[in-house]
Amino acid sequence: VNIGILGTGMVGQTLAGKLTELGHNIVVGTRNVAVTLASVTPTGYGALPPYHVWQKDHPKVKLATFAEAAAHGEIVMNCTSGMNSLEALKLAGEINLDGKILIDASNPLDFSQGIPPMLSVSNTDSLAEQIQRMFPRVRVVKTLNTVNAFVMVNPSVIPGDHNLFLSGNDDEAKLDVITMLTSFGWKANNIIDLGDITTARGTEQYLALWVRLYGKLQNPMLNIHIAVGDPPKM
Amino acid sequence: VNIGILGTGMVGQTLAGKLTELGHNIVVGTRNVAVTLASVTPTGYGALPPYHVWQKDHPKVKLATFAEAAAHGEIVMNCTSGMNSLEALKLAGEINLDGKILIDASNPLDFSQGIPPMLSVSNTDSLAEQIQRMFPRVRVVKTLNTVNAFVMVNPSVIPGDHNLFLSGNDDEAKLDVITMLTSFGWKANNIIDLGDITTARGTEQYLALWVRLYGKLQNPMLNIHIAVGDPPKM
Repeated sequence: VNIGILGTGMVGQTLAGKLTELGHNIVVGTRNVAVTLASVTPTGYGALPPYHVWQKDHPKVKLATFAEAAAHGEIVMNCTSGMNSLEALKLAGEINLDGKILIDASNPLDFSQGIPPMLSVSNTDSLAEQIQRMFPRVRVVKTLNTVNAFVMVNPSVIPGDHNLFLSGNDDEAKLDVITMLTSFGWKANNIIDLGDITTARGTEQYLALWVRLYGKLQNPMLNIHIAVGDPPKM
Repeated sequence: VNIGILGTGMVGQTLAGKLTELGHNIVVGTRNVAVTLASVTPTGYGALPPYHVWQKDHPKVKLATFAEAAAHGEIVMNCTSGMNSLEALKLAGEINLDGKILIDASNPLDFSQGIPPMLSVSNTDSLAEQIQRMFPRVRVVKTLNTVNAFVMVNPSVIPGDHNLFLSGNDDEAKLDVITMLTSFGWKANNIIDLGDITTARGTEQYLALWVRLYGKLQNPMLNIHIAVGDPPKM
């Protein structure tokens, strides 16, 4: 499948690498190709090499503009940092996104006041809803945003069962996304479809707990397993 | 131990019942004793009987005003609904709370716009912090707010390991609270001290996910287990 990945950070690189391994044709989109290739900053605070170094190890992955990557993809993935997502998607262009599945893996984390970050949108709205409102004909599916990039593409790095969530208005799009997630190793039983796109408020705000768990455990390889008992007798 | 429980709802009744069973002396506080006793509305949408019926089954539990319950307690528990907590605590009175451990089990859930509720405070603040600022000499410990009342006092209703969180500025107070939680059946290993009172932002905002999981699963007997893998090699 042709997939466009918006964003050259840790999430973009990791998803591009994994999807290429799985046989898909990937174009990664960035604001300015030359600037991205010139950067010598390691990605993810050193978890991955700078983009131009990573690219040598992933020669099949093409780097292009946001618009070119979106045009290439039958499926498009938003892996930009949440504070920049709306602008990146505008640059990707409605004409290049219309009618497509857009997997939104981003979080509206605002680091401007330090660590842990706050959310730039929360409570009665979510970034996923903002994207859906901006592009009413795009089939937005929010997922993957509750785990680290390494966990996204290799859930077995965390032992045992743990869950991933889906939010979106288009049930068929969600089924296609589940197919991609199971190809990453996610068990279908561990994927919880929370409902429409407004349920992304739940997973985006969960980040407020995630960042504090990360602060406590000093380990980003963390996720939650939803444990359930018998319902109360009423 | 003498414990004051503020709030006559499902959380207040359930904690009062359990703590009495465990041999503690409980006074439950309410705004207006006569009004509470006159109510014929079942508690928790039918999970528990109206207060005056429940009281007959729990003759050792005394009902009194917020101020009397707070004065009685060596430990005080805020089990009021989050939208009313600050006012209830004002009525409880700084003089009756000073220097004491205040366990805050409430959530700032605002149902005024329907279900699922939104949060009345979130992101850059939390109800726990509002309480701590209002009563600087009270030893506020946020906990229990991430689970249903039945799970609070009987974690084994959910099979397997699952976690509870603590937030607070006073380490000794947190140790005393852990002692109470283990008496409810929580394994010490499953209690995660997230840090100071600002970390309550994490557990309060997690409610945005909790309410949607409840909507999806139609079962309040749910909790999360934090699953962790080996840290990435960097």
